[in-house]
Order: sequence, then C-alpha cells, then structure tokens
Amino acid sequence: MSDPLKIAIAGLGTVGAGVVKMIQTHGELLARRAGRPLEIVAVSARSKGKDRGVDLSGYAWEDDPVALAKRDDIDVFVEVMGGEDGPAKASCEAALKAGTHVVTANKAMLALHGQPMAELAESTGAALRFEAAVAGGIPIVKALTEGLAGNGISRVMGVMNGTCNYILTKMEATGESYGEVLKEAQALGYAEADPTVDVGGIDAAHKLSLLAATAFGTRVAFAKVEIEGIQRITLQDIKNAADMGYKIKLLGVAQQNADGIEQRMQPCLVPTSSPLGQLEGVNNMVVVEGDFIGQTVYQGPGAGEGPTASAILGDIMDIARGLIIPAFGQPAKGLSQPNSSSAGSESAYYLRFNLSDTPGTLAELASILGRHGVSINRMHQYGHDGKTAPLVIVTHVTPRAALDAALAEICALKASLAEPVALRIESL
Amino acid sequence: MSDPLKIAIAGLGTVGAGVVKMIQTHGELLARRAGRPLEIVAVSARSKGKDRGVDLSGYAWEDDPVALAKRDDIDVFVEVMGGEDGPAKASCEAALKAGTHVVTANKAMLALHGQPMAELAESTGAALRFEAAVAGGIPIVKALTEGLAGNGISRVMGVMNGTCNYILTKMEATGESYGEVLKEAQALGYAEADPTVDVGGIDAAHKLSLLAATAFGTRVAFAKVEIEGIQRITLQDIKNAADMGYKIKLLGVAQQNADGIEQRMQPCLVPTSSPLGQLEGVNNMVVVEGDFIGQTVYQGPGAGEGPTASAILGDIMDIARGLIIPAFGQPAKGLSQPNSSSAGSESAYYLRFNLSDTPGTLAELASILGRHGVSINRMHQYGHDGKTAPLVIVTHVTPRAALDAALAEICALKASLAEPVALRIESL
Repeated sequence: MSDPLKIAIAGLGTVGAGVVKMIQTHGELLARRAGRPLEIVAVSARSKGKDRGVDLSGYAWEDDPVALAKRDDIDVFVEVMGGEDGPAKASCEAALKAGTHVVTANKAMLALHGQPMAELAESTGAALRFEAAVAGGIPIVKALTEGLAGNGISRVMGVMNGTCNYILTKMEATGESYGEVLKEAQALGYAEADPTVDVGGIDAAHKLSLLAATAFGTRVAFAKVEIEGIQRITLQDIKNAADMGYKIKLLGVAQQNADGIEQRMQPCLVPTSSPLGQLEGVNNMVVVEGDFIGQTVYQGPGAGEGPTASAILGDIMDIARGLIIPAFGQPAKGLSQPNSSSAGSESAYYLRFNLSDTPGTLAELASILGRHGVSINRMHQYGHDGKTAPLVIVTHVTPRAALDAALAEICALKASLAEPVALRIESL
Repeated sequence: MSDPLKIAIAGLGTVGAGVVKMIQTHGELLARRAGRPLEIVAVSARSKGKDRGVDLSGYAWEDDPVALAKRDDIDVFVEVMGGEDGPAKASCEAALKAGTHVVTANKAMLALHGQPMAELAESTGAALRFEAAVAGGIPIVKALTEGLAGNGISRVMGVMNGTCNYILTKMEATGESYGEVLKEAQALGYAEADPTVDVGGIDAAHKLSLLAATAFGTRVAFAKVEIEGIQRITLQDIKNAADMGYKIKLLGVAQQNADGIEQRMQPCLVPTSSPLGQLEGVNNMVVVEGDFIGQTVYQGPGAGEGPTASAILGDIMDIARGLIIPAFGQPAKGLSQPNSSSAGSESAYYLRFNLSDTPGTLAELASILGRHGVSINRMHQYGHDGKTAPLVIVTHVTPRAALDAALAEICALKASLAEPVALRIESL
C-alpha cells in the first residue's frame, strides 16, 4: 500500500462535515479502492468551537484558509467554503500555485474564474476538480470528460436547481401560486431568505457554464449564458402547458449551433412523457446527446450533505489513484470561446400576453407576429374581467431573433399591459 | 503531444466497425482530449474481403486474433468478437500476458472468466476494461468504480436487456401476446432466431454479475445469479400489474443482505411512476443506491453500433490518458465471494396460479399460504371456462424461503395445473 493521501478541508458547514464523516466512516473501504489510505491532516472554518457532529480532534486547525492551502504537508486542498471571490478564491489559488491538488464544490467561483484557475492548475501540474459543483451527487463531469470522451457532443441540458424544480412541481401538485410555494420552500429550508440566486436562474446558470465548457471544450463563459428565472411563471402557465402535454422546467441548455455554442438557462416546456418532464422535487437531471452514443440521462440528488460529499470524494479518490486530467477535459489554453447566442436558434414557443381588452388589439398583435414571420400553431384567450385579456399563443418553429423583434413591437403597443412571457418548447 | 496510443481491433462486426469509424471520424478531437493521437495499427476478423463500410487499407491484417494480440507494436487490444471461450478468451489472455491493455465488450467471457482474467491483468500491469459489456453506452462501470467510489453501495439494479424491455413494453402497448411480439422482434432484428439468451435472462445476468462485482468488490460469480426469463409473462400479468400501478420489467438486482450479496435477474413489478417503470423500448437503465449519494439513475441506449463503440472509446481514452485502475475497482486478489442467495430476503410478491376449478381448492391454497406465514394482501379470481381457474394473489412482505416452501406444496396439489408464476414486487 502506498503513502496516504493527505487532505486539508477548508469549510466545515454541511458539506465539509459530510466529507469528514465519509472519510471517517469508510476509511478501510476507501483505502482498499484507492490503493492507499485517505488521511485528513488539517481543517479550517470560521469558528473553531462549534459542534459539527464530527470529531475533529485529530486534525490540525488553521484559522486562515490561505495558510491551510499553503501547508506543505498536504496533497489535496478541499474548498467547501463557498463565495465566488474572497477566501475561497485566494486559498484555491494558493494551493494550485504550490502544486497542491484542489477539489471544490464552488460553482460561482469557477463560473467566473474557471479559465485562469484551470491554466494555473496546469502550469503547476495540480488537479482542479469540481464534480460537486455541477448537479450535486451525479457524476456528470466524469461522464462527459471520460466516459463519453469518444463522442462529439451536440447538446447537453439539465434541470440543475432543486429549489426551482421543487417550486414548479409543487405549484402543479397543489394548485398554489408561485408566491405561496416559495414561502413554504423558505420555511422548509429549500429556498434562501433572498431566493434570487436560485429562482432567478443564476445558481443553475453557474452550473450550466461549467457543464458547457466540459462538454464542448470551450472556455467557461458565465457572462454568455442567457438567463431567465421562474419568477414570472404562473399557475395558469403550468396548467396551459399540462393541457398540451408539457411540463415547465427551469432548463439549462448548451448546444452546438452554426456559430458556436449557445448557452441558455430559462423556463422551458418539455414533454410530460420525457425523463425531464417526469423529474419531480429537488432531484437534478442532466441529458447528454453525443454523435455516437445518442441520448443518455443522468438523475440524482442535486444537493445536500451526502450527495455533495459523495461527489467530492469521487474527485479525491481519482487524485488518490493518480487519475488526473485537465480540469475541463483538455488543456485549458487550447479551449475555444463559446461565441454564440440563441438568436440564430429555432424553436416553437409558448407565449402569454396580458393585453387591455380593446377592439382591434388581437388583430394588431396577429399582424405584428405575421410580419415577422412568426406563425401561430394554436391560440387561446382566457375568460377575463373585461379590462385585461390574457392570451396564450403557441407558435410554430421560429427563429429566436424574429420572435424577439415581434415581441418588442408588441410590448410597445398601448394595449400591452405587461411584458409578454415567452417560453421555449425544447424538442427532445 | 506524446506518442500515439497503438490499437489493435479483433472483430469487425457492427461494433468493431463502429470503433474504427469513431476513431477515424474524431481523430483530432480524441487527440486533443487524450493528449496523444489514437492510432489503429492492425485488425483481425473472420473474412478479409467483406465490405464493412470503413476503410481498413491503412491497417495491418491478421487472420488469427491471438497473433494480433501478441503483436509487440500495440498498446491496446480491443476484443469485439464475442463468444465466452475460444478465440476471444485466448486472444485476451495472450494480450494480458504480454502486458497489453485489453478493452472488451464481451460480457459472457467476463461473467465466466472475469476473476482469473482480472488477476492476470494485474500481474502484468495491463488494464482490463469492459464498459461496453454492461448496459451498452451508459458509462456505469466508471460511475461505480470512480464517480461513486466514496460510497458504500447497498443496491444496484437495472433493466439491461433491450430485447426483453421491447417485448414487455410492446405487449402492453398493443395488447399482443408474448409469442406475437417475439416474432415481430425477431423480424425487426431486435431478437435472435434462438432468443433464449435474451428472453431467458442469461445475457442480462451476465451483465448483472459484472455490475455486482464492480459495485460490491466481490468476485464475478455468474453461477450465483438466480435467473428467470420473461417467457411465462402473459398479457394478463401485465394488465394485472398495470391495474395495481406497476410495470413488469426484467430487472437485475444485486444487493447487500445480512449474509453477503444476493444477485437475481427476474421479471419484477416496479412502480409505474418510477424511472424504471417509465423505461420504454430498447433503452437500458441502471439505478445505484449508495449510503451517502442516495439514489442515482443512469439511462441510455443498451446496444447498437454507436453506443457500444462509445463505451469502448471511453475505455480506450482512459488508457490513452493513463487512467488505469483494477478491473473491478480494487485489487482482484482481495475481492470477496458474494456468498448469498435471495432466500433470506423479503418482499411482497405477485402470484398467479392456474388451478382446476374444483371445490375446496381455494381453501386448500389459502391454508398452505397461511401455514407458511405468507399473508395475502389482495386476491382476484378471473372469469374462467369452468375447468381452470386463474387466480392472482398479491402477498404482504414475506421471506422468499417461506414463499418457496408454500409454492412447492401448492405445486404438489392435484388441482395445480401449472407451476405458479411468482414475481417479486421490488421496492423503490
């Protein structure tokens, strides 16, 4: 048996404590699998005295995570503090500079700084691993960079925010409004007091940007993700979708189009009978389409102590076994820019308008859509109060740019009382 | 860029030709990802002249796969001939003896000879990889041995024979009998002229034995898999199951019980609403349950040129990158025996009896069940011809051994016209 792999852990919240538990619980099993023992050497967190339900007495303590990262008696630095900058970034960079392998669950940090950090890692021969940052416990980064490494990937998509999926499936199940379910989710701890990062699609977009880089060999480009949250989805939208055989999901999609890779994180309609349509609650799901493999689907818990610790241990075990490849599956300097947007991509859309109930409005709206080549597949006007008229239109397949131009004109109409809701119907 | 990885391919059927196509199509991409080019050096197949839709002119030809395996100018020997013994085994052993890495899709060979072959591989430092042997294109061996390597696995189960899943879902969809659908499947090429290996559960049991070894760190023990095929499933069984909210699937389950690992490949009832229940057609699905990760689900195409080639390329890419671990995730000599059976395991069961319609039979049957502690949850007797009475019983959770004892007694009754059908209701 070889020398132990020496581990430092920065951050002892739910996930950090989970990693400690996992290594303490499975010491013998992990050593047998890795061919060497895993040994926690030192830890760091904000408050030393706090009871975390794990025995930390055998480990050295560092108040400063950067000092922890710089220790010369560690092989791997596990960063589970969070925060896109600050101590997380500083300590990961310190570790990588020292040639110490880094395992992190920090999607925000990598979404913003993934490229320079991957280059830094490669320059010193350190691994930079982030399985826990994408879709929780599902080993999807590994599937993309290794298991499916023979394929050209055409599309990767997923439901990667448990809070949003919980809210949307709960609204449908109980008939409660978005606001009511959000409050419950907050009470249950599924949503933060300020839920914007989740319901606004930002957390999921962080993950998508990492998934896209991994799938397509492009530089992480969070700024290029088109992001729309679920805040404007109404119960009526969910019911309308259900009537047509669809579910509404906050879906992240990265796909190859004519100009490059488009990345979007938006509420979309997906067929009720598809695996994505059937995903309920706080689970995550990622769908990968490759030119030889066809379509594969990966489902699992998207968050929580055990699943996140499992993903981190997967990365640690690879390092213990010497299984080290570049962070995004190929050398970071050679990664291309994902220069594209969804403007050129085509889809059918679900549109909901809120119009004042004045004569001629419908004709005007239909004429604008027609002028931009947006063709109507079906239309439904709901019962209304005589003042406002909610109108739902499903279009035929249309380029996004044409739709956007039409919607801008419709928005400018006097009769338009609110920005229209436009949800892509993702073909599966 | 390092030296090319030199590859030999034995077998140029659908899968072998797919591997050639994939390497020819993605040469540049694969080199970028692997950090070195993949180079096919030599090939072997039964007939040299046959048109396989790929250009083989650049490769050396060997008539004898063993000679191919022994070449000293190759790094990897890809075995896609099939057959549990004979040339497949001889050539893989020759390669491993020479320290040449082996990638194979041969589930039957490994199910029967996996342990000595893994030991041989480790003795010479060669890799022995078989992602393509289990659940086609789904990178499940990698998920189990690497991505989930931090977990203790409690249960792994899956639908791993596309032919059977096609037949069962088609029977339900069209109302046709087992025999009718089997004939169609044979005409479409989904089932062999002699379908026994598929419908008898043997092919799927080969895969399960590999999955079990990988998940639990036990020696491959095909002989310990309890196998039952789908040949006795009737349309009525499928309808009865559907009425109760279940689907019938040929399900392989390996799970930790008090005595060790039990392995069974049997038609089972699974909830219609579960991912396994929703799996249709020729797709495969594997469900893995670990102590930290919880439940994860993997779905994808179970067979075919592209998916199988994708799995083989995944293994080749790992070898090209130097990512090599023991065949079953830990040193072969340390693997334990999966000494167990399902006799001690508990479940609810669906039972169908075919009894002669004589007075007192039902009372006798109920009394036998009761005497063995098998408690009845629900019971339904179907309309019948006055001579035979088909009777369906769903039991409460009961030990398998108690049920078997009861069924043996019932079988011995004069009124029993056929062996009862007993399907486990797998809890999910």
